[in-house]
Amino acid sequence: MTSPWPPPEPGVLTIDTAGGMDGRTSGYDKRLSDMRGVYRDATAYAAAVAERGEDHLVYRVEDHRNVNGAGALIIGTSTLQPGRYGDEFAVTRGHLHAKSDRAELYHCLSGRGVMLLETLDGRSRAVPLTPGAAVHVPGHWVHRSVNIGSEPFVTLFCYPADAGQDYALIAEAGGMAQLIVDDGAGGWTTRSNPDHTGYRKGAA
Amino acid sequence: MTSPWPPPEPGVLTIDTAGGMDGRTSGYDKRLSDMRGVYRDATAYAAAVAERGEDHLVYRVEDHRNVNGAGALIIGTSTLQPGRYGDEFAVTRGHLHAKSDRAELYHCLSGRGVMLLETLDGRSRAVPLTPGAAVHVPGHWVHRSVNIGSEPFVTLFCYPADAGQDYALIAEAGGMAQLIVDDGAGGWTTRSNPDHTGYRKGAA
Repeated sequence: MTSPWPPPEPGVLTIDTAGGMDGRTSGYDKRLSDMRGVYRDATAYAAAVAERGEDHLVYRVEDHRNVNGAGALIIGTSTLQPGRYGDEFAVTRGHLHAKSDRAELYHCLSGRGVMLLETLDGRSRAVPLTPGAAVHVPGHWVHRSVNIGSEPFVTLFCYPADAGQDYALIAEAGGMAQLIVDDGAGGWTTRSNPDHTGYRKGAA
Repeated sequence: MTSPWPPPEPGVLTIDTAGGMDGRTSGYDKRLSDMRGVYRDATAYAAAVAERGEDHLVYRVEDHRNVNGAGALIIGTSTLQPGRYGDEFAVTRGHLHAKSDRAELYHCLSGRGVMLLETLDGRSRAVPLTPGAAVHVPGHWVHRSVNIGSEPFVTLFCYPADAGQDYALIAEAGGMAQLIVDDGAGGWTTRSNPDHTGYRKGAA
């Protein structure tokens, strides 16, 4: 991280539609062991751990960041592996931005997915994403990626560097209000999450 | 434009690698008549106007914006047609953000281009962009797209909604310090712009 003046060098990136980003400055992996409590079907989750091991990769984030503070951006890729836990499709943890009015772009580079979006006052949207499709997530929307396909679901993202992520919000609420599940006919549908207790007050 | 709460609906976009963006909320075209004084070779510019007419399209911007203010984003596409004015390749007007610490992402979707970047204290960079390549432009960098190919040069961009653009800065300085020109061997190179008088003080 550097101060705004003098500005750092431009970041030169090469973004593979498979999710790799040459020029990245940071990133992380989330494995099955990191996803405890995320999926509603605990038995299916335990079976996945037993079958694939706790170190099985669920998703990878690679990003490029060079300046802190208002007006700076974080640019990166999210690569979510395909998977199923009972009838629920593989998801990222999901978040509201810690500065909740911060927006985000997700642009699908490969695979087939859904961006699941919810407001604290009860709106819910599920936006299908295939290569070339994008979603402009305004501030104040909780959001999570879902892989409904059989290949990795890859998105390019861009958001304000001072946004931060509130990951606890979803866990404290018993998960998001909606689930993206198998519709029994080779597609996907939404279903209300019976464990959802409503989002924490004041998070917006 | 809407206020931050309640937040607007997520923007659902379809981005064509040829530059069209379904779901856009605004945009504009720049034609030869809008580019007077931008190219250094006034004779070549006049010849282009005589040959193609003042309404000949130079570039098109399509964008999606839904919230004003800090933390919001503007997402869009820039489609710069190929062209030559003397040995200088087709360019956009270029800008420094009016709030000069605001950053920007450019991700190349098709064509062959260069992002020309300069700081007010004399640094200059030319970043080649082909599909999959991207540049993370930190705040305080003047930047302009250049089409060095024979097809439209298309980028996806994303920047803070409160950034604004200072277009006058480059015009007042007699153009950017560097030009992107034909190298005489089928490629491109940079050449110092003899008309450049230095950027206005205090613009950063």
